[in-house]
Amino acid sequence: MRWIAAMAVIFCTVMCCFSKTEAAVLSEATQECLDCHNVFHPGIVADWEKSRHAQTTVKDAMVKKGSDLRISSKTISDALLPSSVGCAECHTLNGQSHEDTFEHNGYDIHVVVSPKDCGVCHATEDGQYAENLMSHAHGNLTGNKLYQDLQRSILGVPVLQDDDKLTYRPENDMTSAESCLYCHGTRLKVTGSEVRDTDAGELSFPIIKGWPNQGVGRINLDGSRGACSACHTRHQFSIEMARKPHTCKECHTGPDVPAYKVYAASKHGTIYATKKDNWDFKAVPWTVGKDFTAPTCATCHISLVNNTDGDRIIERSHRMNDRLPWRLFGLVYAHPHPLRPDLADIRNSSGIPLPTDFDGTPAATYLIDSKEQAKRTHTFQQLCRNCHDASWVNGHWERVENTIQCTNEATKAATQLMQRIWQSGLASGLSQQKNPFDEAIEKKWCDVWLIQANTIRFSSAMAGGGDYHVFANGYYSLSKGIQEMKDWYDLRTTRTKGTK
Amino acid sequence: MRWIAAMAVIFCTVMCCFSKTEAAVLSEATQECLDCHNVFHPGIVADWEKSRHAQTTVKDAMVKKGSDLRISSKTISDALLPSSVGCAECHTLNGQSHEDTFEHNGYDIHVVVSPKDCGVCHATEDGQYAENLMSHAHGNLTGNKLYQDLQRSILGVPVLQDDDKLTYRPENDMTSAESCLYCHGTRLKVTGSEVRDTDAGELSFPIIKGWPNQGVGRINLDGSRGACSACHTRHQFSIEMARKPHTCKECHTGPDVPAYKVYAASKHGTIYATKKDNWDFKAVPWTVGKDFTAPTCATCHISLVNNTDGDRIIERSHRMNDRLPWRLFGLVYAHPHPLRPDLADIRNSSGIPLPTDFDGTPAATYLIDSKEQAKRTHTFQQLCRNCHDASWVNGHWERVENTIQCTNEATKAATQLMQRIWQSGLASGLSQQKNPFDEAIEKKWCDVWLIQANTIRFSSAMAGGGDYHVFANGYYSLSKGIQEMKDWYDLRTTRTKGTK
Amino acid sequence: MRWIAAMAVIFCTVMCCFSKTEAAVLSEATQECLDCHNVFHPGIVADWEKSRHAQTTVKDAMVKKGSDLRISSKTISDALLPSSVGCAECHTLNGQSHEDTFEHNGYDIHVVVSPKDCGVCHATEDGQYAENLMSHAHGNLTGNKLYQDLQRSILGVPVLQDDDKLTYRPENDMTSAESCLYCHGTRLKVTGSEVRDTDAGELSFPIIKGWPNQGVGRINLDGSRGACSACHTRHQFSIEMARKPHTCKECHTGPDVPAYKVYAASKHGTIYATKKDNWDFKAVPWTVGKDFTAPTCATCHISLVNNTDGDRIIERSHRMNDRLPWRLFGLVYAHPHPLRPDLADIRNSSGIPLPTDFDGTPAATYLIDSKEQAKRTHTFQQLCRNCHDASWVNGHWERVENTIQCTNEATKAATQLMQRIWQSGLASGLSQQKNPFDEAIEKKWCDVWLIQANTIRFSSAMAGGGDYHVFANGYYSLSKGIQEMKDWYDLRTTRTKGTK
Repeated sequence: MRWIAAMAVIFCTVMCCFSKTEAAVLSEATQECLDCHNVFHPGIVADWEKSRHAQTTVKDAMVKKGSDLRISSKTISDALLPSSVGCAECHTLNGQSHEDTFEHNGYDIHVVVSPKDCGVCHATEDGQYAENLMSHAHGNLTGNKLYQDLQRSILGVPVLQDDDKLTYRPENDMTSAESCLYCHGTRLKVTGSEVRDTDAGELSFPIIKGWPNQGVGRINLDGSRGACSACHTRHQFSIEMARKPHTCKECHTGPDVPAYKVYAASKHGTIYATKKDNWDFKAVPWTVGKDFTAPTCATCHISLVNNTDGDRIIERSHRMNDRLPWRLFGLVYAHPHPLRPDLADIRNSSGIPLPTDFDGTPAATYLIDSKEQAKRTHTFQQLCRNCHDASWVNGHWERVENTIQCTNEATKAATQLMQRIWQSGLASGLSQQKNPFDEAIEKKWCDVWLIQANTIRFSSAMAGGGDYHVFANGYYSLSKGIQEMKDWYDLRTTRTKGTK
Repeated sequence: MRWIAAMAVIFCTVMCCFSKTEAAVLSEATQECLDCHNVFHPGIVADWEKSRHAQTTVKDAMVKKGSDLRISSKTISDALLPSSVGCAECHTLNGQSHEDTFEHNGYDIHVVVSPKDCGVCHATEDGQYAENLMSHAHGNLTGNKLYQDLQRSILGVPVLQDDDKLTYRPENDMTSAESCLYCHGTRLKVTGSEVRDTDAGELSFPIIKGWPNQGVGRINLDGSRGACSACHTRHQFSIEMARKPHTCKECHTGPDVPAYKVYAASKHGTIYATKKDNWDFKAVPWTVGKDFTAPTCATCHISLVNNTDGDRIIERSHRMNDRLPWRLFGLVYAHPHPLRPDLADIRNSSGIPLPTDFDGTPAATYLIDSKEQAKRTHTFQQLCRNCHDASWVNGHWERVENTIQCTNEATKAATQLMQRIWQSGLASGLSQQKNPFDEAIEKKWCDVWLIQANTIRFSSAMAGGGDYHVFANGYYSLSKGIQEMKDWYDLRTTRTKGTK
Repeated sequence: MRWIAAMAVIFCTVMCCFSKTEAAVLSEATQECLDCHNVFHPGIVADWEKSRHAQTTVKDAMVKKGSDLRISSKTISDALLPSSVGCAECHTLNGQSHEDTFEHNGYDIHVVVSPKDCGVCHATEDGQYAENLMSHAHGNLTGNKLYQDLQRSILGVPVLQDDDKLTYRPENDMTSAESCLYCHGTRLKVTGSEVRDTDAGELSFPIIKGWPNQGVGRINLDGSRGACSACHTRHQFSIEMARKPHTCKECHTGPDVPAYKVYAASKHGTIYATKKDNWDFKAVPWTVGKDFTAPTCATCHISLVNNTDGDRIIERSHRMNDRLPWRLFGLVYAHPHPLRPDLADIRNSSGIPLPTDFDGTPAATYLIDSKEQAKRTHTFQQLCRNCHDASWVNGHWERVENTIQCTNEATKAATQLMQRIWQSGLASGLSQQKNPFDEAIEKKWCDVWLIQANTIRFSSAMAGGGDYHVFANGYYSLSKGIQEMKDWYDLRTTRTKGTK
C-alpha cells in the first residue's frame, strides 16, 4: 500500500513540476523577491505557488475565452503581460500612489495591496465592489455619530470612581482595530519608518498604523476602500475559499449577525456539510446540479451560476446589494436596502443619522423603492427556482416578508417602552443629550433589536431551522428581553402587579 | 497533473454513464417529467440522478438478498416493477388520496410526497416511524393546551398599550411554520388553486397552506404524519446524509436541545470530525471498526450495526423510542419515556397535560416501567460494548442516572420557588388561570429546565465534555438562574440580606 | 464505476495485508487478547490496527533515523523489542505498580494505561508533559480552597427550604467527574472487585472509582498524572487527531475558554476549514507551506515545525508552557504564566491562593518574569514569521498586550464594584467568611472575568475576528455585565438616577 502511495506521490510530483515549468514565467523582480522570501515566509510563498496567479502569464490569461477568462480589464500595461503575477507584480504596482511605498533592495514596494491594485487586472470586480455596501463599512461606522455612541458604550474601558460613579475611558485604536474594525476595516496610516535587524541585514520599513487588517471596508494607503483578501485569502486568492461559507463566517457568525450559524443549521447547510466533498468549488461557470447541489453564501449573494443546459441563471456581482431587497440587520428595524453604499447623508425625519424613525418609518429618500425591491427579489428567486418550484419559493418569501413585519413590530414595542423609560427619567437618552446605549436597561433594549430580531430575520431568510427562530437568540429570547424591560420598568415605577 | 486528472475524469464519466445506462429504466411518465424539469429544476434532478432510486429498477431491487435488499415491502404493485423510482413514481402514487393532487400535463400529480408514499416500497420503515414519537410531533405540541401557552408566550407579537400594558397579538401561521413547526411539522392544507405563467405556459397549481415544510411530524395531505425528507434530504434521499450528524443538527442544535453541539464536543464527535473521511457512510450493514470507528447520532439511535465477525449487534429501527429509556428534554423533569407516541391523553395527578407532577412525580400510567427502561438500556449498551469494556459502560450509565436525579432535584428547587412566587401574588400562574410562562420571572424559571437542565442531561448522556456540563448553559448557568430567581424574589418581598 | 471501485478495494486490501504481514509481529500475549477482544470490542481493535503501534515492531521503530524515529526513550526492555505494540504491551507494562492490576486469563493486566506506561517508549514526551500545567490540572483545581468554593457554587444541588432559604447539597463524585473533572481529570481509585458474567464466562474485574475519564490531569492508579488519550485518542493514538483542532475543542470550546470557537472564526481557522483536505496531518517534521498552510492549535502550542528548506523553526514540546508568556484565562486577571505546573503554593499578598491580588497585582514570586515572557514571546513569533512579516507580527502582538491591559482594567472595575457591594453588606464574600461566588450578583461578577474578559483575550491572541471580541461574549457582554452590576447596586442603595 505504501509502495503505491509512494509511486503516486513521485509521479504526481514529477508531473506537477513539469506542468508548472511550462506555464509559469517569473519576472526578474519576483524571482528576486522569492530568493529571500521563499526562506523567510515559506507559508505564503507556498500558498501563492498553488494560486492561478503563479501558474499562468498575464498574456496567456488575457486571451482565454468565455468563462475561462478570469481577467476583466480590457487593457493591461505591456510591462505586466509576459510574466506570471508574482510578488513584485502586486507589491510594486501603481508606482508612488501608495503611502507605504519604500525602497527595498532596489525596488519600490508597498506592503498593503489594495483593491485598486487588484483592479489592474480585475477592473469589473474592483468597480462593482466600490459600489458594494461593504466597501464603505469603515466610514459608515466611524462617521456616524450615533453608531460611535454605541461603539463607545461597548468598547470603552470602565473605571469605577471613588464616589461609585462608573465612567469610561474611550477605547484606543488597537482595541477598535481588533473589534469593530476587524470586519469594518481600519484606516491605515504611515506614521514613520523604522530600521529592523533582519536575517538579510539592517533594513528600513514603514510603520503602518491600523496594520494588520483585512476588513472589508479598510481605508488603504492609496485611498481605495476594502481588502480583496478578506474573502480571497492571501496568497492563494482562491475562488474556492471565497465560495465556502467558512470564509463569510469570519465576520458573520453572530450573535449580531448569525448568518453562518443559521446557514449551518439549515437544510442548505446540511447538504453542504454532508455532500461538499463531491462538489467542484473551482468551476467557472458554477453549474447548479453538476458542480454543487445546494447553495453556499456565495451562490446566493455573488456568484455567476449556470444551469446544466449551459444557460446563465444569474450574473456574478461583487456589488452584493444587487440581490438584496432588504437590509435585515444591525439596526432597530429591517428596512429597504440603502440606495447608495456611502450612508453618510442618511437622516431620518428627526435629523438623526438612521435609515428609519424610532417608530420604524423608513427614511425613504435614501432607500430603494418597492419596485427596485421587487426587481432584486425576482433576481434572487431565479436561483431558488433551480431546485424549488414556485409554490415552495413563494411560500418561503412570503414568510420572510411576514417575519420582517412581525420583528419590526416587536422592536417597535421594545423601543416605545425604552422611550417611556427615557421620558420617565429612569434612564438618559438622546433627548437628554446622553448616550442612548450605555445604561443597563438600554443594553437590554439593544439585545432585542441588535441580537434577537436580527437572528429571527436571518433564520427566516435562510430557512435556517427552528432553533435560531426560537431558542437560540430567537423569539424565546426576544420575548424574554421585552418582559425583562417591562419588569425593570414596573419595579422602578412602583407599579404593583395588580396594575400591570 | 492536470492530464492525469482529466484522463481520470473522462474514464470515470464513461464508466459512470455505462453503468447507469445498464441499470436505469425510466418510466414514460418520469421521462416526460424530466424533459421539462431537467431544465427548470436542474439541482434536484441532479440530486435524484445520484440516488439509488435512479440507478435500479424496482424489480431488480426486490430480488436482492440480505442487506442489499433495501426494499422492505413484501409486495409492490406490478406497475412499479419495471422502472426506476423517478419523479412520476413518487409524485403520482396512491391515486387520489392526496388533497393536492392536480392535473399537470396529462398526469395526476401531487406536490407533497408523504411517508405513506415512501411506504409503498419501505413498509417496515413507514410502520416503525408511525410509532416513533417524532411522527406525532405536530399534534403533541399543538394539541397540548399548556404547550400552546408556552408557544404563545414566545411567538406572540408584543404590543405596548398606551397605559403601559404589554399585550401580545397571537403569532400567525407563517410565524409558527418557521419556528416551532419548522421541526414539529406544519399541518398542510390545500386552500385553493392558482394559475401561474410558467416557462411552459399557463398552468394551474394547488395553493398549499403550511408549505414548504419538512418537519418530522408534518400532517400530510393524505392524512399521514411526518416527512422522510427531514433526514433523507430530497432528492438523493441518501443513507449517507441521514447517518451524518449535521442532518440531526437541523432540529437538535440548541440551546433547548443541544444534541449536536454536545456531540461535536464529545470524544465521539472528535473522532468523527477528524476521521470521517476514511469512513463508509453508505455500507449496509454498517460494521463497527470497519465502516466507522465512532458512533454518529444515527448509530446509536436508529442504524443496523454489525460487528466485524458479521454478527448483528443491533437492528435498525425508525421507532427510535426502542433504544430510549428516558425522555431527557423539553419538560420540567426528565422522566421515563412515554408509552405511546401520541401524547394527547397524558395527564398528571392534577389533570394537567404533563408527564410529571410539578414536584416531579411521574404520571406512571402513561410512561414505560422500569423493566422496559432496563430493557432499552441494555439494548443501547450493546452498542457501547463494541468499543468499551463493562466497567467503562457501567461507569458511564451510572453517571447518566445520577445526572437525571440531580438535575431533577435542581429543577424541583426552581419550580418550588416559582410556586412560592405565584402564591405570593408576585406573578400569575395556572392557579390564577393565567399563562405560567409569560412574565419575566417565569421566563427565568423556563431557562432552568428548558435550557440548562436539558443541556446538562445531554452532556451526561453523550459524555459530551465539561463545557456543556458547566459553562455552556450547564450547571454554571443553572445555578446562576436559580440564584437570580431568588434574588428577584427577595428584592420584592423586601427581605434583607440578614434574613436570607 | 462500481467495478473500478471494487477492483481498487480488492487491490488495496491485498497490498494492505501484504504490507502489514511484513511488519507486524504480535506477541503471544497480544494475540491471545485479540482472540477474544477482536469479537468483543471490534471498534477499538480496528482503531489499533490502523495505528503505527500495530504496524511495526519496537526494534524496527528504534533504529529509524531523524524524524522517522518516533520513540524517544534511549533504552527499552529487551522483552518489548521483537513485537508490535499491542494490547498486552501497554496493559501489562510496569508490573504491579498499577493499583488496578488483576489476573485475567493468566495475565496480570491493568485497565488504565498511564503516561508512565506510554513513557516506556516515549520518555521525552512523558517527561515534558509531567512539567506541563495540564498534568497538574486535577490538583490545581481540587487542592485550591477558593476554586473549590467556585466549584461548589456551580455544581451543588440547590434545595429550597421551607423558610425560603436556598441551600446547596454538595455535588457528588459522579457529578464532578462529568463536569469540572471531565477535563481536569478525576482521581482514580480501586474500591473493590466484582465478578461479571461475560461472554467468556464469569470473570473478576476491579471496580474503579472515577472511571471512565480521560482528563488531562487524571490521577492514575500508578500515581502518575494525565492521560495521553485525552488528545491522542485511543486506540489509534494518531498524531493526525492531536493536530486537528477538534481534539482541543473537547475541553476548549467555551464560553469560559472559547479557544476553538475563536479559532474557527479566525482567518487561520477559515484556511483550515477550506483547505485542510489538501494538508498532510501525519508528516513529521511538519513543514509549513508544504504540509499545511495555516496553523492549527497544535502548530502554535506543541508541534515540531520545519520550513521548506528543512530548517527547524521550532522544537516539539509537550510542556506547552514553553511557548506561553501569559496565562490568559480562568482567573480575574490575565497574568504572567506560573513558574511551575504545580500551583499549590501560590499565594497573593493577602495569603489567598490566587496568582494576583484582587486589584490585579501579580504574585510575582510564583510567576515567570518579564525576561522569560520575552523569551517565550520570541519563540512563539518564530512561527508567525513564516507567513507574516515583522510589521504584521509586531502589530498583532502589540494588540494582544494592549488587550491584556484593557481587559485587566475592566475586570478591576468590576471587582472594585463587587468589593463595595461586599462592604455594603448587600452580599457576603471572603471577608464575611462566605463563599464569594454563590449569590446572584457574585455570579454576574464571575461572568465578567470568567467568560467575557477571557473571550476577548482569546479573540485578541488568535486574531479571532470581530464577533468574539464584541458581540459573542466580548466587550458588548462585558460592558453590559458591569452596567447590570451597577444597576443592581444602585437600586439597592436607593440611589436615584440624579446622583448616579
